Amino acid sequence: MMPRSLVSSSDLSVDDIRLMTANARKLLPLIQSGTKKTLNHLSGRTVATFFCEPSTRTRCSFELAAKILGAHTIDVSPEQSSLTKGETIADTIETLVTMGVDAIVIRHTEDGLPQAMAEKYGKRIAILNAGDGITDHPTQGLLDILTLIQQFGSLEALQGKKMTILGNITHSRVVGSHLRLMQQLGVDITLVAPDFFMPSVIEREKWHAQYCVNFTEEFEEGLENADIVMPLRIQSERIDEFELSLMGRYAQGYQLNHLNVGMRCKPGFVILHPGPVNYNIEITEELANDPNISRIRQQVACGVALRMAALHWCIEG
Amino acid sequence: MMPRSLVSSSDLSVDDIRLMTANARKLLPLIQSGTKKTLNHLSGRTVATFFCEPSTRTRCSFELAAKILGAHTIDVSPEQSSLTKGETIADTIETLVTMGVDAIVIRHTEDGLPQAMAEKYGKRIAILNAGDGITDHPTQGLLDILTLIQQFGSLEALQGKKMTILGNITHSRVVGSHLRLMQQLGVDITLVAPDFFMPSVIEREKWHAQYCVNFTEEFEEGLENADIVMPLRIQSERIDEFELSLMGRYAQGYQLNHLNVGMRCKPGFVILHPGPVNYNIEITEELANDPNISRIRQQVACGVALRMAALHWCIEG
Amino acid sequence: MMPRSLVSSSDLSVDDIRLMTANARKLLPLIQSGTKKTLNHLSGRTVATFFCEPSTRTRCSFELAAKILGAHTIDVSPEQSSLTKGETIADTIETLVTMGVDAIVIRHTEDGLPQAMAEKYGKRIAILNAGDGITDHPTQGLLDILTLIQQFGSLEALQGKKMTILGNITHSRVVGSHLRLMQQLGVDITLVAPDFFMPSVIEREKWHAQYCVNFTEEFEEGLENADIVMPLRIQSERIDEFELSLMGRYAQGYQLNHLNVGMRCKPGFVILHPGPVNYNIEITEELANDPNISRIRQQVACGVALRMAALHWCIEG
Repeated sequence: MMPRSLVSSSDLSVDDIRLMTANARKLLPLIQSGTKKTLNHLSGRTVATFFCEPSTRTRCSFELAAKILGAHTIDVSPEQSSLTKGETIADTIETLVTMGVDAIVIRHTEDGLPQAMAEKYGKRIAILNAGDGITDHPTQGLLDILTLIQQFGSLEALQGKKMTILGNITHSRVVGSHLRLMQQLGVDITLVAPDFFMPSVIEREKWHAQYCVNFTEEFEEGLENADIVMPLRIQSERIDEFELSLMGRYAQGYQLNHLNVGMRCKPGFVILHPGPVNYNIEITEELANDPNISRIRQQVACGVALRMAALHWCIEG
Repeated sequence: MMPRSLVSSSDLSVDDIRLMTANARKLLPLIQSGTKKTLNHLSGRTVATFFCEPSTRTRCSFELAAKILGAHTIDVSPEQSSLTKGETIADTIETLVTMGVDAIVIRHTEDGLPQAMAEKYGKRIAILNAGDGITDHPTQGLLDILTLIQQFGSLEALQGKKMTILGNITHSRVVGSHLRLMQQLGVDITLVAPDFFMPSVIEREKWHAQYCVNFTEEFEEGLENADIVMPLRIQSERIDEFELSLMGRYAQGYQLNHLNVGMRCKPGFVILHPGPVNYNIEITEELANDPNISRIRQQVACGVALRMAALHWCIEG
Repeated sequence: MMPRSLVSSSDLSVDDIRLMTANARKLLPLIQSGTKKTLNHLSGRTVATFFCEPSTRTRCSFELAAKILGAHTIDVSPEQSSLTKGETIADTIETLVTMGVDAIVIRHTEDGLPQAMAEKYGKRIAILNAGDGITDHPTQGLLDILTLIQQFGSLEALQGKKMTILGNITHSRVVGSHLRLMQQLGVDITLVAPDFFMPSVIEREKWHAQYCVNFTEEFEEGLENADIVMPLRIQSERIDEFELSLMGRYAQGYQLNHLNVGMRCKPGFVILHPGPVNYNIEITEELANDPNISRIRQQVACGVALRMAALHWCIEG
């Protein structure tokens, strides 16, 4: 049996999305309950994590998912300093394949690297993209779909829903995943950003043609009638002074709070966030933690369940 | 069933101490024997370790304890550089709770952080304090009690024993744990330190009122009739020149050796040390390794057994 | 039952080599097949990894080997910065022994350190040398023997084979292991190096007397009639400008390619490499990846199988 790789959101069909989210949904009560978690779907399998960018949340989520399914896990993440050329990563993957490792979960700053590795090694090992450059992060897109299925009842119920994504669009790998996945499910996406976070006209036209996505700089207009609102994380940890001023300007014009979402969004709307949240920058702490509106906590539980389903889908075919 | 947290020595009743050390005592032969160790008390549970200060001994001890009990373990320790505000730690813990993690073992430079986290998250996850600032390190206190129970036969036998703790009292988290725990068991504690390691008069009066503890700068007087002697570790790895001279002065006046302990202590006395030992500074290498007097090795084995009991007590209630 | 240590190639008898490689050979299909890998030979045992030099390949290989056999693993590798004196390593090992750890896999820059530790602690814990200084790396030697047994059919078939090792001989720990192990099996070793990588006359005479090994600076002469060719890794990651020029000179005079090996070596010859390969320095990428000649991939699979056999041999006696 051949392994499957999960590297590009655009490779996934609606049937793939349905299968993975349906399996993940069955696993969700196990994560959320306080019961002991022991399964053996992947017992005897080995999952390697290879993170060339720091990550606690995604790495733990995959590691936990693998362990709950009974797999062995090994971490082969290089130290920051020894980040090297694709050539060396290829050799590392070749080594892992030959050692009998069944899947490798890879995050890398280079756009397209997991895809290139899957092309080269995909027949012998399952490659899972845990984020590449600013391109893609498919399991993040899938876990958000799972969260929305939990919210609205079914995959089909997402058809025609209006989703508003706000913030630093030009530097988000999450946006790309969402556009590719959500468009297939008939979700109607609006991207909202100030001029300094807005893609170029050419890119906007390309995205519009490809995904029917709309763009606006008008904050309140963008929220109008939204069923789902997702502010992106502003990368506050690596800002210089110029960007610091941008953050202030962003927060002033685009910060979500109870008042503005309450005024504009459709009744019953929910908020997602790829995490971790910068409280009181892209969203107020109060709103981010409002259990009636925020589904940020559910995203985390969905993340483990979805990655269990994804690992199983990749390794066992 | 609700989890229990173990964050403050002062929260533990004599019954708690008795229960945990009794359970640990039953597990001790397993650690000390060469037999295979496979239990399933915590199979399907997940224990996360979160160490914001370097630690090999305590982290390994907890990790091993969890694994022997059949639990999954994940390490979420941040890199040194990304040490951040309590706010972010709270978010990390919230994430772990939501992922279905059952317990988190936390060490942090900030006094009281594990306690604050237990207040906030203690109903949903077990929090174990593996050392906070210079305040507390409850499992260290408990493992020392277990070591002494092995030595003197029972918890009750500790009543009226004289324990002398020497050294850098002002900067030790171990002292706080011992004062709170040992005082409940009727152990009579004397703290011995030169002026430069001695707490202020106000603090000494407070401690004396609260724990009936005695203070002295007189080395030999402090050792007089001691049943238990515990030199603290002088943190030799981070010394500047001024402190280097203090270390020399400390070693000259307060170093334990066969002669001085033999002259002063009660026959049958034993030595504990929170480890790792600076040989020939707080104690001679010969004395630290004398199997008739030193119980340092036993403390290590007791550490794994006690942490097994503590994890079980916290997770399974 | 007493544990066994595996620290020096020179301690291993032909019977030891035969036993370990025979057991590893039985495990090899498990590694190479896509089947689930679950054994319980070491279930309930604990293997600690302690790497004081960076290593992905060897560390992962040992960790995976331990996990496939059902053992718990813990990593106690110090941060680069806290690399310290043998004294402290002794204390770490004492601690691990007392915690009930069954084996420790150690790599260290100091020549002879694993041997010294085995002398001190070998009765209480199994110590496995994963590379010390420029002295020894016994499991590397054993996995190469296993690779050659797979190639030539049996241990006995290695008798009289000609093996040529090329490159930076003065700084290789692999050479030492091979000399000691291969000589016992009747393999006839020739060492080839330019003057700047060649040991001193005195050392060459010593090695010749002890292992009947031949030396030459003549590249083509060294390859003549070789059954096995092993270029050593040139440590390109830590070169200064002078060494950079040496690397260029080395590559010019000693790089293996299809033409020169095809002309000189015996028909049916194979290539080994301790990895990771510097493509187009010690060997062309094309030759390193030629499945008819290169056995580099097989070495990796043999590495896991051999380390499973080695851990079992050490822990279960």
